[in-house]
Amino acid sequence: MIVNPITWKKDHISIIDQTVLPGRLKYEACRTVSQVREAIQKLKVRGAPLIGIAGAYGFLLGIRGFRAKDAAALRREALHIKHRLISSRPTAVNLAWAVRRMFHVFEENASLPRAALLKRLEAEAHRIFREDADMCRRMGAHGAVLLRSGDSVLTVCNAGALATSGGGTALSVFYRAHEQGKRLKVYACETRPLLQGARLTTWELKRHGLDVTLICDNMAARLMQQGRIRAVFVGADRIAANGDFANKIGTYGLAVLARYHGIPFYAVAPSSTFDLTLATGAEIPIEERDPDEITTLHFERPIAPAGVKVYNPSFDMTPAFLVTGIVTEQGVLRRPFSKSIRSMYGRGSK
Amino acid sequence: MIVNPITWKKDHISIIDQTVLPGRLKYEACRTVSQVREAIQKLKVRGAPLIGIAGAYGFLLGIRGFRAKDAAALRREALHIKHRLISSRPTAVNLAWAVRRMFHVFEENASLPRAALLKRLEAEAHRIFREDADMCRRMGAHGAVLLRSGDSVLTVCNAGALATSGGGTALSVFYRAHEQGKRLKVYACETRPLLQGARLTTWELKRHGLDVTLICDNMAARLMQQGRIRAVFVGADRIAANGDFANKIGTYGLAVLARYHGIPFYAVAPSSTFDLTLATGAEIPIEERDPDEITTLHFERPIAPAGVKVYNPSFDMTPAFLVTGIVTEQGVLRRPFSKSIRSMYGRGSK
Repeated sequence: MIVNPITWKKDHISIIDQTVLPGRLKYEACRTVSQVREAIQKLKVRGAPLIGIAGAYGFLLGIRGFRAKDAAALRREALHIKHRLISSRPTAVNLAWAVRRMFHVFEENASLPRAALLKRLEAEAHRIFREDADMCRRMGAHGAVLLRSGDSVLTVCNAGALATSGGGTALSVFYRAHEQGKRLKVYACETRPLLQGARLTTWELKRHGLDVTLICDNMAARLMQQGRIRAVFVGADRIAANGDFANKIGTYGLAVLARYHGIPFYAVAPSSTFDLTLATGAEIPIEERDPDEITTLHFERPIAPAGVKVYNPSFDMTPAFLVTGIVTEQGVLRRPFSKSIRSMYGRGSK
Repeated sequence: MIVNPITWKKDHISIIDQTVLPGRLKYEACRTVSQVREAIQKLKVRGAPLIGIAGAYGFLLGIRGFRAKDAAALRREALHIKHRLISSRPTAVNLAWAVRRMFHVFEENASLPRAALLKRLEAEAHRIFREDADMCRRMGAHGAVLLRSGDSVLTVCNAGALATSGGGTALSVFYRAHEQGKRLKVYACETRPLLQGARLTTWELKRHGLDVTLICDNMAARLMQQGRIRAVFVGADRIAANGDFANKIGTYGLAVLARYHGIPFYAVAPSSTFDLTLATGAEIPIEERDPDEITTLHFERPIAPAGVKVYNPSFDMTPAFLVTGIVTEQGVLRRPFSKSIRSMYGRGSK
């Protein structure tokens, strides 16, 4: 039903090149770690859960493509692959989580014959893929309870089918509510500089028959002022132990605006997004990207004077005290998050 | 010194076409009311004070270009010109203010011979032009007092030399502080959809030697969260009797964010921006513009799916209680604004 941004094709992955949407629906083959790394860095594949899945398949491709002289060389290569994949983007933790999971399976099975090892790795990558789709469904179900027919909701970036192997994180909530027959009006922030909201979120919501209206990021406050937003749902790239979380730049501002206007603000993310090694969001690394992303429109025509100084953080950090709830596949976490997050992990989440 | 976006050339005005900056510095001649109206509607000429000046010259051009059979026909034409110019954009009040001022001079001198009437009208248009430049200097002086060397400031849209006949409203404050030897770091919000901040503000500040850094609109909150903004200065398109004001979309959100972070927030505008016929900002008409402004980048390549619904308000309304002060040519108004605005007018402002 929903578009599939990554598909395993026996000896490679086929990805949708998300940088050319909505103009073209173009598939691209990735056969090597370098190609996967480049697809992640150039945002052909993006969205925290999806780059985790890409990383998992990337690890598999790396081991498949390496002919080791001996066990030590193979392990050195596996470590190298792990490092290259994890370092391709710094903020989202799902990438590191998925690649480490693959590395763990590698280590447990490194003594097996090559074919058996590859089979285990392939099975694990598929498992990560399927688990993500399943978590999307469960997040959607938990989040949809928070919505009533007639609600207007706001989202930023693309936390949808294009960001996961299922129906998305934040958008899975809207899809599920829509399936339940609830009429929703979705406002999508365009999400400068790379316009994931304008290009991707409107595209997949329209394709799926939802009522979506595009706004520029700086219009959200006016909608809230007019009482036209009932709730905000966003994805997350990394959530610290206290509930602080990093997400696409602009998320923090929306959280402040929502608080000011008394509007509930929810992060939606699978448990692989939590990084309990970080006490607070202050420790989350925030990627700063190329100034060209801002000064040229979609990598083409300049819109600012040559050489102008630019500040281009790709993410920001939203403190937990601005968050109403965190929707996970296990349910909606409520404040105090340091307690509800701990107890979710206590219930035996991965 | 500073670029001049409108110049009177004996029988026409020469304007900078601001839609093609920063790529090209292109001048264009406007000889008729229709050309002036189109230049205003297409944002070749923009900025509340500047469209007032364009309106004044437009009125002069209209009367110059009309050969009346009799006094009644001339007056009908003058009313028609007045209406066409004022209706070209609804939100900024300076346009109506300047055109009404020209019409008033017309009415007072309608019985004079044509040459004498035109001379009076030309003199009045020049007076509006010069007064605006003078008000910019005075706003700059009053506002610069609020800044110290080393301050980082934030602005939105273009409230600069390109928006006035002088050094601007908000930007005149920065220019003046810079002239006084204060080191400033200016952050310019790019100002979607038409990118006046990215295209115009960075261009003129760089040209003038100021330290300017471009950000996307959704990055302002992060700078504030990091303690990197000392004050916010914005222009205004119309200010109601209680201090509520309309300005470029995104202004209201910045005001909320500034309040949340405890950062002073100033509107900078000449007295022609006040509309005392409106009790509050709720009565200010907010222009909604073409969806294409959002869905295609700078009128060219599509960045959103064809036919997507779009909400595109060009302005928003910032309530007075979020405003620290209003910098005018007569000084800095403080709260309660309903009182300080009344008393400014009591001192005999136009």
